Amino acid sequence: MAGIVVQNIARADRAVVDGLARCGVATVHEAQDRTGLLASYMRPIYPGARVAGSAVTISAAPGDNWMVHVAIEQLQDGDILLLAPTSPCEDGYFGDLLATSAQARGCRGLIIDAGVRDVRDLTEMGFPVWSKAIFAQGTVKNTLGSVNVPVVCAGAAINPGDVIVADDDGVVCVPRKKAAKVLEAARAREANEAEKREKLASGVLGLDMYAMRERLAKEGLTYV
Amino acid sequence: MAGIVVQNIARADRAVVDGLARCGVATVHEAQDRTGLLASYMRPIYPGARVAGSAVTISAAPGDNWMVHVAIEQLQDGDILLLAPTSPCEDGYFGDLLATSAQARGCRGLIIDAGVRDVRDLTEMGFPVWSKAIFAQGTVKNTLGSVNVPVVCAGAAINPGDVIVADDDGVVCVPRKKAAKVLEAARAREANEAEKREKLASGVLGLDMYAMRERLAKEGLTYV
Amino acid sequence: MAGIVVQNIARADRAVVDGLARCGVATVHEAQDRTGLLASYMRPIYPGARVAGSAVTISAAPGDNWMVHVAIEQLQDGDILLLAPTSPCEDGYFGDLLATSAQARGCRGLIIDAGVRDVRDLTEMGFPVWSKAIFAQGTVKNTLGSVNVPVVCAGAAINPGDVIVADDDGVVCVPRKKAAKVLEAARAREANEAEKREKLASGVLGLDMYAMRERLAKEGLTYV
Amino acid sequence: MAGIVVQNIARADRAVVDGLARCGVATVHEAQDRTGLLASYMRPIYPGARVAGSAVTISAAPGDNWMVHVAIEQLQDGDILLLAPTSPCEDGYFGDLLATSAQARGCRGLIIDAGVRDVRDLTEMGFPVWSKAIFAQGTVKNTLGSVNVPVVCAGAAINPGDVIVADDDGVVCVPRKKAAKVLEAARAREANEAEKREKLASGVLGLDMYAMRERLAKEGLTYV
Amino acid sequence: MAGIVVQNIARADRAVVDGLARCGVATVHEAQDRTGLLASYMRPIYPGARVAGSAVTISAAPGDNWMVHVAIEQLQDGDILLLAPTSPCEDGYFGDLLATSAQARGCRGLIIDAGVRDVRDLTEMGFPVWSKAIFAQGTVKNTLGSVNVPVVCAGAAINPGDVIVADDDGVVCVPRKKAAKVLEAARAREANEAEKREKLASGVLGLDMYAMRERLAKEGLTYV
Amino acid sequence: MAGIVVQNIARADRAVVDGLARCGVATVHEAQDRTGLLASYMRPIYPGARVAGSAVTISAAPGDNWMVHVAIEQLQDGDILLLAPTSPCEDGYFGDLLATSAQARGCRGLIIDAGVRDVRDLTEMGFPVWSKAIFAQGTVKNTLGSVNVPVVCAGAAINPGDVIVADDDGVVCVPRKKAAKVLEAARAREANEAEKREKLASGVLGLDMYAMRERLAKEGLTYV
Repeated sequence: MAGIVVQNIARADRAVVDGLARCGVATVHEAQDRTGLLASYMRPIYPGARVAGSAVTISAAPGDNWMVHVAIEQLQDGDILLLAPTSPCEDGYFGDLLATSAQARGCRGLIIDAGVRDVRDLTEMGFPVWSKAIFAQGTVKNTLGSVNVPVVCAGAAINPGDVIVADDDGVVCVPRKKAAKVLEAARAREANEAEKREKLASGVLGLDMYAMRERLAKEGLTYV
Repeated sequence: MAGIVVQNIARADRAVVDGLARCGVATVHEAQDRTGLLASYMRPIYPGARVAGSAVTISAAPGDNWMVHVAIEQLQDGDILLLAPTSPCEDGYFGDLLATSAQARGCRGLIIDAGVRDVRDLTEMGFPVWSKAIFAQGTVKNTLGSVNVPVVCAGAAINPGDVIVADDDGVVCVPRKKAAKVLEAARAREANEAEKREKLASGVLGLDMYAMRERLAKEGLTYV
Repeated sequence: MAGIVVQNIARADRAVVDGLARCGVATVHEAQDRTGLLASYMRPIYPGARVAGSAVTISAAPGDNWMVHVAIEQLQDGDILLLAPTSPCEDGYFGDLLATSAQARGCRGLIIDAGVRDVRDLTEMGFPVWSKAIFAQGTVKNTLGSVNVPVVCAGAAINPGDVIVADDDGVVCVPRKKAAKVLEAARAREANEAEKREKLASGVLGLDMYAMRERLAKEGLTYV
Repeated sequence: MAGIVVQNIARADRAVVDGLARCGVATVHEAQDRTGLLASYMRPIYPGARVAGSAVTISAAPGDNWMVHVAIEQLQDGDILLLAPTSPCEDGYFGDLLATSAQARGCRGLIIDAGVRDVRDLTEMGFPVWSKAIFAQGTVKNTLGSVNVPVVCAGAAINPGDVIVADDDGVVCVPRKKAAKVLEAARAREANEAEKREKLASGVLGLDMYAMRERLAKEGLTYV
Repeated sequence: MAGIVVQNIARADRAVVDGLARCGVATVHEAQDRTGLLASYMRPIYPGARVAGSAVTISAAPGDNWMVHVAIEQLQDGDILLLAPTSPCEDGYFGDLLATSAQARGCRGLIIDAGVRDVRDLTEMGFPVWSKAIFAQGTVKNTLGSVNVPVVCAGAAINPGDVIVADDDGVVCVPRKKAAKVLEAARAREANEAEKREKLASGVLGLDMYAMRERLAKEGLTYV
Repeated sequence: MAGIVVQNIARADRAVVDGLARCGVATVHEAQDRTGLLASYMRPIYPGARVAGSAVTISAAPGDNWMVHVAIEQLQDGDILLLAPTSPCEDGYFGDLLATSAQARGCRGLIIDAGVRDVRDLTEMGFPVWSKAIFAQGTVKNTLGSVNVPVVCAGAAINPGDVIVADDDGVVCVPRKKAAKVLEAARAREANEAEKREKLASGVLGLDMYAMRERLAKEGLTYV
């Protein structure tokens, strides 16, 4: 099954992708009914980055980064590389040389359910990575994998061309076809949240703002 | 057993609480005979915060943050929210809206044996959180828990009104009734430490300063 | 077997040690054929440090830091303390007082397959630590261990006097006798990498730069 | 997105399902190019069971087993229940009462990326379970999930009606449409393996049987 | 705070203790409103044991089993030893010699949030242990701890004399004063369960037996 | 560094090896001053096996079992295969075919800091394995490793020809040159233990048998 490179994948509209980036992971995740989130162990190598892009997916053998080179050729401006090993692995598949190459093609970052290295250089370059580990352990180039096939990455099912949104809260995948609707829902939430934030800051309680007291009493909550 | 909100809890003296914050977790922990420490997986969402406050405790169902809203009404200026799920969970119970509401009531931070989200906003707000995970995964509001009941949080038994001290070294719980004595002991340690630090900086060895050589020799330590 | 302090250990040439620090962990690790790396859970307490030094090793009982005091006397300028517990442990063996003492003797940092505390102070002092945990849990001084004996630390076999290189990518051990050769190989890689980086930045693909296309085709890679 | 029950799902041919059970997980996994395997933490509650069945999938909130009751109505003879929580959870969603009900409908077992309880009773009943945990922690019935929707379970993407094969080596998912071909490939492997086993038992080396010596030498393997 | 042995602790009525053993962990846990459960990592060293007893608690330093000897003198017929280290530890505090001694005093088993060894011998002796690890790593006898003080063990707060129930599903703690009421509630559940089991075995669905259909529909469950 | 096969390794005397097997892991580990133990996550695939043998070591790339075939040729009657991956890995390097081949050469078992599969077959064959995982995930044969070189396996440094002892308590490595002395010490412990066991069984307390009361009192132990 390995050994396939899909060259033409559909991508979401750039404005939609960029809009999702501005909303951030937590809002986007709520806006699509709390689905598509990657596992909490996927952490950014430096704080403060917030990006979105179209997924160029990589299915790679454990400890083998050959397919990363193949995938970089498939990158278009605005894409995000996303690598899922075929078996759990923390090796450092990716470092500053590959980041230089990916960045030259307009890549916005890397999501990798494995390890990354040269993180000081990547930080200086402003190339954000969300990974399972930071690990200097190198890899080989001996076994074929695939590029732009469906993968499961950190517990989430991802198709090539899906929109990946990543920030300090983690990483979420928005299916390409739903991206525009999810953006709409996310923006509605944001508008809504600004108003709520103001009320809460002024001292209004969530108990009152969300009218929870009656239902709590009905469920039997007892104040002593 | 769930479904209880205790409204009037005793709190430690504010000056004692603030004094404990200044001493920091490691010193306070030593000052109370190395007890009361939460597990090492409880990490701050940003470095540099050092706070103390009276615990308003929350016992909540996994993936259900209904009781956080209830607890916020119980907060007084100088308190710290402390949430223990009734079963292990990493969901993001708490984000910037709840933080806004808690902060409006004078809350100094959150200790949560589960997940937190919107960490970029929380960082900007200066609302410190010590958590098991950062995870955008949302929660529901369907199941009652309790507020201000005794809980076990990250391996430590905690009563409402106990003093929680938290900094870059982790989180420690000081039983309310012992707080004044622990502060006294912590300050004694600090005075003591300044002098030791000076000696060590000047090149005096711990072996000599603590007079360890004889006991080491007696135990059989051999230099080769 | 415990209870031994080896006083005279051979160390690598200072210029070699310093040269290895400049190359960094990922490059050094590659330069010695991807060997000697410590496990990925060994993380720095603050970002940005990059050091190398000769290992003064400590084999210590779990939760007992008596031997750290003994080891500090054995430190020479340019050394790195390296502690491996005899059984897995996350306790905070080391804090700002011990760091003050170690720093007074020219110690460049600590590698500890256990916990560390007072990390805010250590950060302010500029004393870097790579550890398994940050944990305020204190230790006792009751059981003998050994100093400057061979240890296994975070999965790597280490001899006293070996060169330890540590940065944001982790920690690698270079056997003392190979240090000069490894430095030479690391420098060759670096020269080589600068050229590669330039090419990649200009848009040349790794597929072409490394002439991978033929071998990929031979293995059966299929573009669709 | 939650709150859906798909009632009519396609299932693989019973003879194919039963044939896959006889081949076992390791062989089936190889026969479909090493894909579809669930994570290694999915372990059987007792040794020796080997089953296959059509997946009736459950997507459930953490700590909420309401949907299990809904799913049981959808079971047909020869099915396997497969539950994936929407957020990581180890609670005991399932015990002897639910097993009694499932068994009454011909269910062959449970695959659950969470916890199970009453394992002594389940063992006596001969109802096999592969789970992430054994945990007596109970669950509530408050939040809707879905039945017979696509899920990611223990790292594998699974569609309702896919064939699940489980034994002491773990759990593998065979996509329904590929099931017949995978069975064919698995049987071919088995025939092949019997012959190999005999040769190896007689002392023939894999090095010779698989003609590896030349390639090893070419790669540079050196005997000293 | 360490260094205390409480000699006279109250114990629950023997008939109550024995009754709780017969009910088993899952039923007892439900009967006390899903409280008191130890973490799921506490596993039996062999399957099939089901015991209950009064807790003689041990608070011990990591890697130091001195207090086990002290605790054994405090054992009465029908007791269970329960050890919580003051810091996380997997060392083997307990083996066949200590089990022989404990068994000679009528001890029914060991609950240890750490390691155990000699498990083949313990299995042959029929001395059940629930532990975090099986680990041959030995311990020292250098640091005082305490016996019969309140502890937190595997996430549960436990007082000396509380009733511990343990079986293949894990370990649960019943507060001594509630033991009789919990037994009553557990027996009521059991009677209830027999009837339910019969109905479910005959093909009645939980959906109907528990009258769930209306509430599911009201919440919006949709069949497609 | 990889790509080496050492053909002639020294082995310990067979009688010594067999004697160590009879003593078991816990006793041998004590007899060599609590050194040489592998991590507690190394567990047997079935209970009850107790073996010892001379280590034929394998250093292998993650997910690549090519070197296992090479190592089998180096096996002599009474040996044990021991595999350490060069980077953490749980893949199933070894199954029933390789076990058949190893068993045909007199191999007594496998120690693998990675995964194993076909465990039902291995159990039926009586071929014991201690592993980090049971995982059907297959491996490739693309990258050279080495055979009979020093390795670190599950945290222990091991040389080819060292004696490996494994049973239900885990795995311990005895350096070849110390094997005879360790056996002597282990036997002395055993003789000693039989007598102790008898005393303890008769009700004598460890407190008295080991004369601990005075030292406990001196340390400040207080009975209340």
